[in-house]
Amino acid sequence: MMKAFEDKGSTLVLASGVFDLVHYGHVYFLQEAKKAGGENARLVVVVARDKTVERLKGRPSVLPEEQRRAIVEALKPVDEAILGREDFNVEEILREIKPDIVAVGHDQTDIEENVRRLVSERGLRIRVVRIGRFASTGLESSSGIKRKIADQG
Amino acid sequence: MMKAFEDKGSTLVLASGVFDLVHYGHVYFLQEAKKAGGENARLVVVVARDKTVERLKGRPSVLPEEQRRAIVEALKPVDEAILGREDFNVEEILREIKPDIVAVGHDQTDIEENVRRLVSERGLRIRVVRIGRFASTGLESSSGIKRKIADQG
Repeated sequence: MMKAFEDKGSTLVLASGVFDLVHYGHVYFLQEAKKAGGENARLVVVVARDKTVERLKGRPSVLPEEQRRAIVEALKPVDEAILGREDFNVEEILREIKPDIVAVGHDQTDIEENVRRLVSERGLRIRVVRIGRFASTGLESSSGIKRKIADQG
Repeated sequence: MMKAFEDKGSTLVLASGVFDLVHYGHVYFLQEAKKAGGENARLVVVVARDKTVERLKGRPSVLPEEQRRAIVEALKPVDEAILGREDFNVEEILREIKPDIVAVGHDQTDIEENVRRLVSERGLRIRVVRIGRFASTGLESSSGIKRKIADQG
């Protein structure tokens, strides 16, 4: 599992998310995150634990964590997908994975602030890259998908 | 787009489906479909058109066809994902793509019968491989996912 972290010749990009119902916005985010690392990028994705999702969003994910992780790892831009920490300790994740770049999605402002603060306070050599939104048909978010399913009832 | 079909050195596997809300059952199906073609397999996936989904299932897909296609093509086992024909003419698809193997899912009995009949009637050199079901937690189907979302509603 740790092989991605030992490959010193490449630029290690770290991305994270819940990835509950995979939509094209996820695919776009991960493709752009990988591109941010250039030619020799390796992309490691931390997938949020079920307990973290429930605590932060106030409701459980539709798909269990191991399935969410396996689907993310099946996507072409992803070299490795691992489950996050139940305590959601961002500093600990950065210490373990040692990314060169942390890629954040347009809606991950909390994570972005958290990482930027740690980078500044600890003097870490990590670049934070924000990935723009793909489009806005409303179907590039899990909540948009859920609304459409509910509407179709 | 046609490059997969011109590579004569590999075993061409054809799979098809709607792939509306990607779940681990889809990933498993596509991984096993590719394996059915051995070492040098190429996997081409025909993604059902929106009109076909609406006609066959009596309701529209949640995600539009181009997004469903792009997500399928972003999965590691898939070499190429193309949109199907609006007339859903299986014989025409087989003639265009010339697969060595057609992989069918456990719930694709109509397609399986259709392909087997054509293979028999036309004397085609196509092997039909049925891929078993991954598991049965209920979350390896789009309808299971929709039910869970409705229950959470």
